[in-house]
Amino acid sequence: MKIICSKANLSKGVSTVYKAVPSKTTMPILECILIDATNDIIRLTANDMELGIQTDIEGEIVERGMIAIDAKIFSEIVRKLPDNEIKIETNENLQMTITCEKAKFDLSGKPGEEFSYLPIIEKDESIEISQFTLKEVIRQTIFSIADTESNKLMTGELFEIRSNVLRVISLDGHRISIRRIELKDEVADKKLIVPGKTLMEVSKILSGEAESMVSISYTSNHIVFEFDNTVVVSRLIEGEYFKIDQMLSNDYETKVRINKKELLNCIDRATLLVKEGDKKPIIINISDEMMELRIKSQIGSMNEEIFITKEGKDLLIGFNPKFLIDALRVIEDEEVTLYLMNAKAPCFIKDDEESYIYLILPVNFNAAA
Amino acid sequence: MKIICSKANLSKGVSTVYKAVPSKTTMPILECILIDATNDIIRLTANDMELGIQTDIEGEIVERGMIAIDAKIFSEIVRKLPDNEIKIETNENLQMTITCEKAKFDLSGKPGEEFSYLPIIEKDESIEISQFTLKEVIRQTIFSIADTESNKLMTGELFEIRSNVLRVISLDGHRISIRRIELKDEVADKKLIVPGKTLMEVSKILSGEAESMVSISYTSNHIVFEFDNTVVVSRLIEGEYFKIDQMLSNDYETKVRINKKELLNCIDRATLLVKEGDKKPIIINISDEMMELRIKSQIGSMNEEIFITKEGKDLLIGFNPKFLIDALRVIEDEEVTLYLMNAKAPCFIKDDEESYIYLILPVNFNAAA
Repeated sequence: MKIICSKANLSKGVSTVYKAVPSKTTMPILECILIDATNDIIRLTANDMELGIQTDIEGEIVERGMIAIDAKIFSEIVRKLPDNEIKIETNENLQMTITCEKAKFDLSGKPGEEFSYLPIIEKDESIEISQFTLKEVIRQTIFSIADTESNKLMTGELFEIRSNVLRVISLDGHRISIRRIELKDEVADKKLIVPGKTLMEVSKILSGEAESMVSISYTSNHIVFEFDNTVVVSRLIEGEYFKIDQMLSNDYETKVRINKKELLNCIDRATLLVKEGDKKPIIINISDEMMELRIKSQIGSMNEEIFITKEGKDLLIGFNPKFLIDALRVIEDEEVTLYLMNAKAPCFIKDDEESYIYLILPVNFNAAA
Repeated sequence: MKIICSKANLSKGVSTVYKAVPSKTTMPILECILIDATNDIIRLTANDMELGIQTDIEGEIVERGMIAIDAKIFSEIVRKLPDNEIKIETNENLQMTITCEKAKFDLSGKPGEEFSYLPIIEKDESIEISQFTLKEVIRQTIFSIADTESNKLMTGELFEIRSNVLRVISLDGHRISIRRIELKDEVADKKLIVPGKTLMEVSKILSGEAESMVSISYTSNHIVFEFDNTVVVSRLIEGEYFKIDQMLSNDYETKVRINKKELLNCIDRATLLVKEGDKKPIIINISDEMMELRIKSQIGSMNEEIFITKEGKDLLIGFNPKFLIDALRVIEDEEVTLYLMNAKAPCFIKDDEESYIYLILPVNFNAAA
């Protein structure tokens, strides 16, 4: 194989597929990036068997061929080469020579045939949304997946397509995050549980431009994201996701309008008094025109008042401050509305169109305070 | 005590003195910052017994007094308060109340009297240099102190004043770094060994402005840095520093002029093939008009050529690449000159005025290659 491409193109391609290189594996071939120039295009692929990424880069193929090369050392070398043309050549002994200006590296590769190609997906159906929307929706929901493997379903997010609306949903047993996106085209209803790890890696590769589109297609086992020159293929999580709609309610006894930044900053300050792992709740006292927040720990105590607009009953309720912070951070609105029932029922933060719904369970603070 | 000051002033002051708060100590009082408003000024102090920092901040003293308060939680709270006036009040039970807008924190303090004040230094003599120069000279030499305590002298830097010239010198047994600064005023000869940790912390606090000056004064046991509203007092390291001048030589058999950036980037790339802890040398082959650099490890091999101007003999010599990188990174010149004797003698990188001298011992590569 002999190929020539610019450092910029190669570097971008390598860092894109690198996200599917497993940090730990018992199969050394998976630690490699496959450089495939057997056809008319230079294609880079990495694949940890759950998640696979391939990307095509511009360049010149002088001699066709392919090779698998250790991803870590290859990516580091490419990154540190001068910003110029890079020539990659392999010989029959799988020795790879990388030349750029007067620098020359020699590395040992592995036969490309040993590499696990991405599965070939017979696409049932697909939807299109902008890179910006997908990147945002992941950021706005990913924090409330569970990070333990004890419940596999909770480590993924539900992509639910119903009546040409995509709802992206995550939950961890204490809270639920829901974002709603109107789809442009007619598409059949479908539920997919996408691994959280896949979404995090996809989100890192997405440029996030509002004008560039992502095509998301799926079968019963796989989801495929296609954008720019890149294809990301991931297994889906098998199983029946939780019945979300049963957990949502439009009833409330107390409705609060509050400045989002004031509330967020106040809770953020309050957490200074809570040591990591300590489960001190923040106690919220809602009365007419005023919300008082207070927290007390071994370190000290804090209280602060914020002006609000209130409808309905007064209420004293406790929350894990981190859960409120996570939700408030990803809401762009200047003011948010909280819907509460009583001190033991979940709090809903949502907008009128329900383009977002954040459900947070309260904490029993009689014991904790 | 009752004081009022701006968040910006308090925050800056706290982060300045925080650098003298020990991360580990058996004396809880040392984990505190002392707020002293017993006189007409608000003074913050931290002191780990080796290094002490005090800084004065602007503000209003409503009621005089002092208190010692846990540095970590206090600094975090101050940092997260709104950008407005902060009121700090203490009562007779050492309870401190911090109020800013509608936020109120209550913390327990310790009596200020328990705090270890900075030693009172009878200044023998002092020199003045700009903040910029001091900050630069620390950056340009600090990397070659030894980080082990096995030889205490090597953990510090020599500040040598001789004939109105300050030389700042560090060495770790494999290399020596020397920077030379002309002093403006007449001052007596003196040698001080300043702890590396002190210099690192001072360097972080210095604004680095060329117009602001630092006054450096000293006794036989202490060094004092005074700048802006801040005083840093540090113990000196006791003992007789190494006789540097005996190690320096102006003889050479080979003299090389080379583009600094090309050399630095080339060595930087070469280190990709060296795993941490592995002691592979970079081998440099100096011939007429060309320097060839090569490295070989289990990962692979690399070679690169750079155009040079050479005087004297050809030479094949090996170095620890990290030592070359460290020195080249802090030299601002576009071209550098290397002076070499033979494959077993040190290499000198220096300019004509000897405003900097970097001595690096070679590595025996016959065994290693």
